[in-house]
Amino acid sequence: MAAAEFDLIERIRRRVPARADVVLGIGDDAALLRVPAGRELVVAMDTLNAGVHFPDGTAPADIGWKALAVNLSDLAAMAAEPAWCTLSLSLPQADPAWLDAFLDGYLALAAQHGVALVGGDTTRGPLSICVTAHGMVEPGRALRRDRAREGDTVWVSGTLGDAAGALAQWRAGGAIDAALRARLDRPTPRLALRAALRHAHAGIDVSDGLLADLGHVCAASGVGAEVMLSALPTSAALAAAFAPDAQHALQASGGDDYELCFTAPPEARDALRQAAAEAGVAISEIGRVIAGEGVRALHDDGREWVAAQGGYDHFRG
Amino acid sequence: MAAAEFDLIERIRRRVPARADVVLGIGDDAALLRVPAGRELVVAMDTLNAGVHFPDGTAPADIGWKALAVNLSDLAAMAAEPAWCTLSLSLPQADPAWLDAFLDGYLALAAQHGVALVGGDTTRGPLSICVTAHGMVEPGRALRRDRAREGDTVWVSGTLGDAAGALAQWRAGGAIDAALRARLDRPTPRLALRAALRHAHAGIDVSDGLLADLGHVCAASGVGAEVMLSALPTSAALAAAFAPDAQHALQASGGDDYELCFTAPPEARDALRQAAAEAGVAISEIGRVIAGEGVRALHDDGREWVAAQGGYDHFRG
Repeated sequence: MAAAEFDLIERIRRRVPARADVVLGIGDDAALLRVPAGRELVVAMDTLNAGVHFPDGTAPADIGWKALAVNLSDLAAMAAEPAWCTLSLSLPQADPAWLDAFLDGYLALAAQHGVALVGGDTTRGPLSICVTAHGMVEPGRALRRDRAREGDTVWVSGTLGDAAGALAQWRAGGAIDAALRARLDRPTPRLALRAALRHAHAGIDVSDGLLADLGHVCAASGVGAEVMLSALPTSAALAAAFAPDAQHALQASGGDDYELCFTAPPEARDALRQAAAEAGVAISEIGRVIAGEGVRALHDDGREWVAAQGGYDHFRG
Repeated sequence: MAAAEFDLIERIRRRVPARADVVLGIGDDAALLRVPAGRELVVAMDTLNAGVHFPDGTAPADIGWKALAVNLSDLAAMAAEPAWCTLSLSLPQADPAWLDAFLDGYLALAAQHGVALVGGDTTRGPLSICVTAHGMVEPGRALRRDRAREGDTVWVSGTLGDAAGALAQWRAGGAIDAALRARLDRPTPRLALRAALRHAHAGIDVSDGLLADLGHVCAASGVGAEVMLSALPTSAALAAAFAPDAQHALQASGGDDYELCFTAPPEARDALRQAAAEAGVAISEIGRVIAGEGVRALHDDGREWVAAQGGYDHFRG
């Protein structure tokens, strides 16, 4: 099923819907795009490599979904509105059937958020997917990492540890719970929380693990944080599949959930909860920002939880 | 020499100069950028994979240069002014010395054109470099592929076949001419031609081979073209290293020169030449746009030149 690069690009181009602010999309040396007046451009870029960011044997549609999802999650973490993306696809061989299935997942998520695929390239190489996502935000409204303040409450969306739970089951070689697997393969970028995040001070998406990612916020902001293990939101699937100690490790240190972790002033608690409810996304208060540095996870009796190993690092993990 | 992902990113961040329109650069979930009013955003994305887009053993500084150059070349082919780039780097292992050398080449070219590196990621995987380049153009001023007209003259910048000549020498296992090798490893994005391209109708950069790339312009524009083999600009190094037949094949079908090929109305000939001279870039008139379809290369006696093989295709080549 060999096909040339241009056939693959044409195969992609045919499936991409139009968007009014795309002057010129796939098929030239570069895309031409209109950024509305009074908006800042928000640009995120993330790569998924086979065997590193998804298990070998992951369905191509799930790979397509996830490649876009992790980038839209970065825009969500900036409280940005997504607009366009570019896709660079390295494939061991030109396989139209694989490409079609990949696009099924990729374009399904793009359509959910009105994101136009406007360019990129296809090349020969080990399976690797690089995506750049572009969005817009009103000046001063982006949610940065460096604005957490002492006294802030700490929040997280959805549930934690599910994707890491699926990976743990996969590594153990046993059956993988379908609900956990879905969270690993098809993460939900929390773009729906954009309005709610107007009440937040600082935020990040949880890709490397809660403690590691909250640690980035704290380091950038010059503060510390404490989170309560018992407050970490837990899915029924995770609770059914793992003992409490294992759950805590997955929730505190496991990556790939792509939930949002953010801080907000205590007085914004009710407004935050209401805005999240209107968005249809569960959020949980899990801790607080304190003076100092570093992030500690605490048992209910105040003992500090100590991880058996650190956060997920793509050069170690 | 293992180092964690965050150390690599910090290593990159420390070396990147500021730019006034970058609200937030490396170090958050996404970059925040200001697009000036009255400009369209131009976005190009290209990946280089080891062993596919550069020979194994290429110096890391040259890989860094080339990874940015091929993207800036796409902006040059749109007659856009470059502004920002993002970089996704997949490395087999975290190697600070390799990264520093890579950045030497990458950032040297970025500095030449005032391009700010504003984000991206580093991941573990087979060596692969994905870059997204962002630039600006006045609305209606972008040089597209689909605007060539019957009667246009066809032009190319610089000289052709040098990069393919170096690759041919490398594949033959003999010595590689230094001047040819420099053209393969350190292509010059022809951003200096931006003003001159105001006189052009359509254009593309020569990455897949002259006939293939001019063929894309013709296909997009619904026209054909003829080019004269004797008019193709030839470097002294290429002329010294290859017999005329081999030269023609390298110039017509060899990729990786990253020169610009463009069409312009005959009456713009003098203005084009003057603008290119002011830019300090040699340009050569090599043929004309005709009715019909396809691109033919002609000997001086009118015989058609037939390639032994087609243009460079990353899925075949």
